[in-house]
Amino acid sequence: MRTTIRAVLAASLTLTLAATASAQDWTKSKWGPKDEIGAMNLITSKSVLQAAKLIKTGKTYNLGIIVDKNTPAFPPRSLSLTVLQPNQISSTGLGPSKTTYNDDIFMGWLGIGPQIDGLGHIGVDHVYYNGNKDKDFAKADGLKKLGIEKYPPIVARGVVLDMAGYYGVKIVKEGTPYTKEDIIGAAKKQGIEIRKGDVVLFHSGWLNLLDGKDGTKKNPKRWGSVEPGLGKTGAAYLISKEVIAVGGDTWGLETVPFEKGVGVFEIHQMLIPMNGIVILESIDTRELVKDKGWEFLFVLGPARIRGAVQMIINPIAIR
Amino acid sequence: MRTTIRAVLAASLTLTLAATASAQDWTKSKWGPKDEIGAMNLITSKSVLQAAKLIKTGKTYNLGIIVDKNTPAFPPRSLSLTVLQPNQISSTGLGPSKTTYNDDIFMGWLGIGPQIDGLGHIGVDHVYYNGNKDKDFAKADGLKKLGIEKYPPIVARGVVLDMAGYYGVKIVKEGTPYTKEDIIGAAKKQGIEIRKGDVVLFHSGWLNLLDGKDGTKKNPKRWGSVEPGLGKTGAAYLISKEVIAVGGDTWGLETVPFEKGVGVFEIHQMLIPMNGIVILESIDTRELVKDKGWEFLFVLGPARIRGAVQMIINPIAIR
Amino acid sequence: MRTTIRAVLAASLTLTLAATASAQDWTKSKWGPKDEIGAMNLITSKSVLQAAKLIKTGKTYNLGIIVDKNTPAFPPRSLSLTVLQPNQISSTGLGPSKTTYNDDIFMGWLGIGPQIDGLGHIGVDHVYYNGNKDKDFAKADGLKKLGIEKYPPIVARGVVLDMAGYYGVKIVKEGTPYTKEDIIGAAKKQGIEIRKGDVVLFHSGWLNLLDGKDGTKKNPKRWGSVEPGLGKTGAAYLISKEVIAVGGDTWGLETVPFEKGVGVFEIHQMLIPMNGIVILESIDTRELVKDKGWEFLFVLGPARIRGAVQMIINPIAIR
Amino acid sequence: MRTTIRAVLAASLTLTLAATASAQDWTKSKWGPKDEIGAMNLITSKSVLQAAKLIKTGKTYNLGIIVDKNTPAFPPRSLSLTVLQPNQISSTGLGPSKTTYNDDIFMGWLGIGPQIDGLGHIGVDHVYYNGNKDKDFAKADGLKKLGIEKYPPIVARGVVLDMAGYYGVKIVKEGTPYTKEDIIGAAKKQGIEIRKGDVVLFHSGWLNLLDGKDGTKKNPKRWGSVEPGLGKTGAAYLISKEVIAVGGDTWGLETVPFEKGVGVFEIHQMLIPMNGIVILESIDTRELVKDKGWEFLFVLGPARIRGAVQMIINPIAIR
Repeated sequence: MRTTIRAVLAASLTLTLAATASAQDWTKSKWGPKDEIGAMNLITSKSVLQAAKLIKTGKTYNLGIIVDKNTPAFPPRSLSLTVLQPNQISSTGLGPSKTTYNDDIFMGWLGIGPQIDGLGHIGVDHVYYNGNKDKDFAKADGLKKLGIEKYPPIVARGVVLDMAGYYGVKIVKEGTPYTKEDIIGAAKKQGIEIRKGDVVLFHSGWLNLLDGKDGTKKNPKRWGSVEPGLGKTGAAYLISKEVIAVGGDTWGLETVPFEKGVGVFEIHQMLIPMNGIVILESIDTRELVKDKGWEFLFVLGPARIRGAVQMIINPIAIR
Repeated sequence: MRTTIRAVLAASLTLTLAATASAQDWTKSKWGPKDEIGAMNLITSKSVLQAAKLIKTGKTYNLGIIVDKNTPAFPPRSLSLTVLQPNQISSTGLGPSKTTYNDDIFMGWLGIGPQIDGLGHIGVDHVYYNGNKDKDFAKADGLKKLGIEKYPPIVARGVVLDMAGYYGVKIVKEGTPYTKEDIIGAAKKQGIEIRKGDVVLFHSGWLNLLDGKDGTKKNPKRWGSVEPGLGKTGAAYLISKEVIAVGGDTWGLETVPFEKGVGVFEIHQMLIPMNGIVILESIDTRELVKDKGWEFLFVLGPARIRGAVQMIINPIAIR
Repeated sequence: MRTTIRAVLAASLTLTLAATASAQDWTKSKWGPKDEIGAMNLITSKSVLQAAKLIKTGKTYNLGIIVDKNTPAFPPRSLSLTVLQPNQISSTGLGPSKTTYNDDIFMGWLGIGPQIDGLGHIGVDHVYYNGNKDKDFAKADGLKKLGIEKYPPIVARGVVLDMAGYYGVKIVKEGTPYTKEDIIGAAKKQGIEIRKGDVVLFHSGWLNLLDGKDGTKKNPKRWGSVEPGLGKTGAAYLISKEVIAVGGDTWGLETVPFEKGVGVFEIHQMLIPMNGIVILESIDTRELVKDKGWEFLFVLGPARIRGAVQMIINPIAIR
Repeated sequence: MRTTIRAVLAASLTLTLAATASAQDWTKSKWGPKDEIGAMNLITSKSVLQAAKLIKTGKTYNLGIIVDKNTPAFPPRSLSLTVLQPNQISSTGLGPSKTTYNDDIFMGWLGIGPQIDGLGHIGVDHVYYNGNKDKDFAKADGLKKLGIEKYPPIVARGVVLDMAGYYGVKIVKEGTPYTKEDIIGAAKKQGIEIRKGDVVLFHSGWLNLLDGKDGTKKNPKRWGSVEPGLGKTGAAYLISKEVIAVGGDTWGLETVPFEKGVGVFEIHQMLIPMNGIVILESIDTRELVKDKGWEFLFVLGPARIRGAVQMIINPIAIR
């Protein structure tokens, strides 16, 4: 898989199309020169109250997939978890009540599995959201701006678009870009609309390749090296709708191989640095789709590690 | 600080009182022999719907404090975050759109700062929740049972008890145990009740010692070595009320130095292995207290790293 | 491979033979109750001078194999190396001379690839070299006794025994134990003797399975799950000769599957805790054997990380 | 300390002197376009044989200091070591012989404490030894060229220059540059000469500030933020003598604050990329100096982690 994604990248690097990073003044946020949270500015008491009205059944959903050392990751990312019992070997525990305990150590990259791509993650030629230059804020011991710890609670109306259902397939094929028309069509089919301040999640069925649920034959290599995903017109449409986050059940949101005429992770660029919209990856949308839970209250509080770029997450849907 | 906490532990080890781990059959969960989620079983569609009704203002709260390498931690826990730009040195980025990106690496323990102590964290002489023995499930590459990834979304009615306000102090002194009477008194003063299925958070003002907000003189050493906290009668009371999680604005929930006649982290034992109640530490309750937001919808989705014991978290309060 | 080694271990656990850890008083080192370096006490100015006389050609050898994330390791050990350019993105370097630099981060276990198994590594039912109990010295933040940092320079006469040559095979088959007779026979065939204070290295050709040098078909799984190695009579013989270290070109020194009637890593127990003899694993003996460099000056200075149990090493042979 | 070194760096950045990285063709190694080992090419059987003749007393020396989490490091470098007993809690060990074991995990940077700065460590505006550009070889998962694992055994004549003795002080003051004259003078005073192929180590007494041996008052902050060290004429002199490695008892070899008119770590640039000479830092020269062991056999085999830039080391001196 890692070889494959590299091959895909290599192929894309030969594109001769002009970069689309030419948008006039994306480096100046509409939320002001000091803004570090982008479209999350759209979260207001009013929007939260409105979204909370979507809670009607009381059913909740873990939207993050389970992640471990075998979860395919963008190279060279890797992780390991170690459980240990510090200073308890040959011991019956601490004190008269014999307290024993397990602890755990994490070694690895935060951009693995269910993750939020924060506003400091993606740039255009070293320029990031709100015109921040990596040399100024991306310090080795943590981002000095745009860190995950700065975010407000990400509480919003969530919608899931069942692209597999829209296309009439079980699993959307890799390389399939969701166009503006597709998105409008899928929303229409589901009878929902996309609104300002929404968190939009795409369902492609792709996760079944990773874990084999629903009887699909597991193919982690395929899962992690290619994917269907958000196309350029689709991204532009979501931006025009002023959503605050876009995610889905694939590892990288946008289609890989990249859409014809679209640069390497250019959809990431359109969303994150150019419009302050965070991305959510490896989001498990299956149960929501099964329940036709098209609308819900989306709640996410990423761990606030100072200066973090990304974070392994488990957003909660409530409806 | 690390020296100090060790001294405190050493002192406690000399206690000659009988352990309280004598409860008859706590090793058999009331939720059945296969249960791995304890009191979180009390989360139902009905309880979620009920709790969601507490959303009245649309105001949201990050309950996790910001954590970094300087956050005091129970020894020998430590962490570091490193931001890097993989394979981008002397590069204008990937492809025609010049995509650049920052990534981050976390090295460290998951029991630092705002954390959930999962059901696999604390045991009594090597026996954990539902009678699981550490040798059977606490494997070096991750818990085989009781891992964080098994949890349902933790969505419940949250209540905050302002113990500082109850005691009439700005910061509750270390070594102060919250008794049953204190808890009842504080709830009464605030005009709220503690109910089955609640997440109960204690506010002591202790975090001001860590970050100096509100003008308190910072004293991270004091913050991380001692603390006020939940006492034994208070814990028993909360257990009797069938809460699902107990937390607060200190690093270890219970009072340190330990309450007279109480073992080393014995409150942890009462809650976690004996009653399947998770603990939440280093929770920032200040804004809630300031707003008198005594009741709220509590939402937590800890990152689902397979086999994890603890997790750095940022629960969200919505009211 | 990891599955395989576990199966091998499981099979061994069913052995009903009495443990050999019955040696009367191995818990009392002959070098005194405070000794932490075991047989390395035999290194003296005189022994070093004597060994230095073996330098006759001036040829030197890296005895450590190259290790990376793909090197098979005893589960759940793993490692990763990350190279980064701290704070240099979009920079021409520090100061007028434009200094740029690469740094690297290691995350992982120290018992991978070419390693020294120190005196704190192996015990018998929680008792280690010189009677040290793990609860007393094996602290979570580093060994308080027997740490690698305490060792003298390991400078000694080194000998390599070509077991493949002795058996007349290219690669010695897994499960083959080197007996006392084999060792005597191989030494005799090579015209060398084993002496007090020696570092003895065994050559089996096994490394060719890992890296495919010499045209052998690579089989890392086989390499890392089974192995030929030192048998029980062979180990007793080396102990009787008062060697100071024993190593070889396999991942675990002793034969796996374990020799009939021999416990799980019991050879490790005979050498390390019972006799204070360190073990060296994944040592590349090929060039020495090719050169018939049966005797040489062995020089090893493991990195002195305080409290370390093992260490990735690269001993040097000079002859 | 970390603040201090940053302040020092900041001051140096204001230097207006021309960079010295102007040497015509240092980007082409005299050892050929494919060379990756620089001056280590000078190690030959003959040079080794010659150096081995320095072994006269049989006394050996650990030249690496002991390193732990408290060892001052160039920011943001840090490290931690964790000892654990994988899968052995509540166990009497594996199999009939009851094998128990300790393992250890290292999390951190390899450029801490006693370290070798490899040929891939330092560059001039992103160009490294032999003209290699960082974008070509400094990949996130390890150096593709110039990695530590490529080195031959570093076996050579070692000499220690007692600069403290030469200057007539116990500890050479920070900011003191060792000039060509100083080096010639010190060598003369000791009655030794510097030869082609040598490893040259400087003794300043500086380590006494770190560990307080010899009764010096410990001052780790001072130790790690400033230092005396090799000056520009001294470096040029050593280069002219064709040494293969230069090291000493300070954390960064060259004088900090930087010598007047010398760039930020410009001595590193002169030695490593421009002349293929590796640097050895935090080397404990005290015992050698005490013994007047001015000449010795120097032996170093850095752990061969593929693609590593630096490595924590413990070179051995034998005389």
